[in-house]
Amino acid sequence: MKNDVNRQFRLKSRPVGRIKDSDFEYVESPIPQPKEGEAVVRNLYLSLDPTNRIWMSDIDQYMPPVEIGAVMRGGGIGQVVASRSPRFQVGDLVVGFVNWQDYSVARPDDAVPLRILPKGLPIPLPTMMAACGMTGLTAYFGLLELGKPKTGDTVVVSAAAGAVGSVVGQIAKIKGCRTVGIAGGPDKCKLIKDEFGYDEAVDYKAADWRERLIKATPSGIDVNFENVGGEIMEAVMARMNLYGRMPLCGMISGYNAAEPAKADFTPILMRRIGIQGFIVTDFAAKYAEGATQLARWVVEGKLKSKETIVEGLEKAPTAVNMLFDGSNVGKLIVKIADPAAI
Amino acid sequence: MKNDVNRQFRLKSRPVGRIKDSDFEYVESPIPQPKEGEAVVRNLYLSLDPTNRIWMSDIDQYMPPVEIGAVMRGGGIGQVVASRSPRFQVGDLVVGFVNWQDYSVARPDDAVPLRILPKGLPIPLPTMMAACGMTGLTAYFGLLELGKPKTGDTVVVSAAAGAVGSVVGQIAKIKGCRTVGIAGGPDKCKLIKDEFGYDEAVDYKAADWRERLIKATPSGIDVNFENVGGEIMEAVMARMNLYGRMPLCGMISGYNAAEPAKADFTPILMRRIGIQGFIVTDFAAKYAEGATQLARWVVEGKLKSKETIVEGLEKAPTAVNMLFDGSNVGKLIVKIADPAAI
Repeated sequence: MKNDVNRQFRLKSRPVGRIKDSDFEYVESPIPQPKEGEAVVRNLYLSLDPTNRIWMSDIDQYMPPVEIGAVMRGGGIGQVVASRSPRFQVGDLVVGFVNWQDYSVARPDDAVPLRILPKGLPIPLPTMMAACGMTGLTAYFGLLELGKPKTGDTVVVSAAAGAVGSVVGQIAKIKGCRTVGIAGGPDKCKLIKDEFGYDEAVDYKAADWRERLIKATPSGIDVNFENVGGEIMEAVMARMNLYGRMPLCGMISGYNAAEPAKADFTPILMRRIGIQGFIVTDFAAKYAEGATQLARWVVEGKLKSKETIVEGLEKAPTAVNMLFDGSNVGKLIVKIADPAAI
Repeated sequence: MKNDVNRQFRLKSRPVGRIKDSDFEYVESPIPQPKEGEAVVRNLYLSLDPTNRIWMSDIDQYMPPVEIGAVMRGGGIGQVVASRSPRFQVGDLVVGFVNWQDYSVARPDDAVPLRILPKGLPIPLPTMMAACGMTGLTAYFGLLELGKPKTGDTVVVSAAAGAVGSVVGQIAKIKGCRTVGIAGGPDKCKLIKDEFGYDEAVDYKAADWRERLIKATPSGIDVNFENVGGEIMEAVMARMNLYGRMPLCGMISGYNAAEPAKADFTPILMRRIGIQGFIVTDFAAKYAEGATQLARWVVEGKLKSKETIVEGLEKAPTAVNMLFDGSNVGKLIVKIADPAAI
């Protein structure tokens, strides 16, 4: 690893299907120096999320796609190493779009400014990106504001061993629900029960997964926290109860596909299901409330944060595929560097 | 027409595709006599609705399907001609499930009791089944409670010349929205603009209907009142704005199909659309409010009711297909008999 350059991954072509190394151009740029009003940030951790794949495409999406030739967009945590900005001091830990590079620049006109993390939090930095970060907030607001779980409700979560799903299940348990997680393979199914407290786990890689889902939901399904889409979503919707709620957080099964998987709307009508698509930023006005509650649960030991950490910025382009292979558990993070004692 | 028997249409087989005469058995039963606690009703008008087709099938639905051999279920208006019930007096006009027959019996243990219409209403009986009946209430609650239209919103309505759609467009105009109706053929498109005040009409039978829809919604779509499903629904969803609302009232394009038409969920996620399936009975607790408002608008001339009336109970099995051919405008009603001056 070179310390005298700013390694960057720039989007070279829009991936077709699975992401390939060759979809990115590796560039060694000079380490940026701050202009008046700017701060330079050493990136420490990069958050890898299904949404990265969406941003690489030019499909209909909730933000502009990453332009060809631009540094790949990504959230993460960094540390201010040089500042000519009144907002940032050297040593500040910041969170936001640091992108796939060693160093990023905070500018006064950033559409989404980097935010400074509170000092002295008794929570590890990776957890600040997982259960206590955007991932946790996604779970928190999607489940509570849109899923509206009541005590005793059956809550089903797809990608239950994933970053968001692992948190959704735990919050649903805190709220007194019966939780059923869908995950791939016996190891993950064991994990979600042992670690995240799911009452039942359905292995979607098992040949009889449909029967298992039915067996695991004898009283039907009141809330479906949807992360996956496709045939798993359809099977869950077919089990939903009257007036069921379905926060639509993601449909990762389709992100590598050329055409979206379509699904039957009939249960929505017949069972009067409410579906609401959302992105965590829809709840930006309430972040403080959610972040405080999540941090409290983590500190109290009521909410476990799980991360899969891949070492090295150079791994980002291939590591992101782990989300689609299902080879991560919890939050997938690339570690770029350790924070300095400043 | 015979006056000394109770003509009935009983469901003989579940229709495959389009409804056929042979799916019903025509039976001449004796005219019922009331037992203690019962009233006998002469049926006057029968409401034909897409939901009739659903009840003939044994698909997943919101009420039990009509059993084979049972008189076909249907809403309508009748007049009490004999009563041994304290609730009903001879001469009362009643509304509810009168079913496909000349005479029905109101029993004390009816799951959904017939309701007595207020006397002296300055509104014709067919209108009491159309803009002022369940049809109007469907439009009213679906649009206002779920669509949440704001002044200046673009509201798109499919099956806009139909029973519900013709009312939805008018209420949306009353609420200050820009209304775009989708209907089949130039005549209906003219009608929905001239009669129901739609700002724009999109003829889905035109080869370039997709382009017309785009042109008619230059600011996108805020509310989609969905009656049709299938590719029209998909095209509308592709135009929906961020945080658009989509009351899902029906998907008539699929009711004759063996397999439901599937649709892409992607816009729900990316545009954070809220979809809520509903049936008018979900709002039963608020019927009085809605019915009062609808009647007021009709009496004030702000809301027009349109009906297509087919004469003769014997026409019911074939007339219901008009809903699927699109050969009715407004509410499709079968007239069985005139009310008597009692």
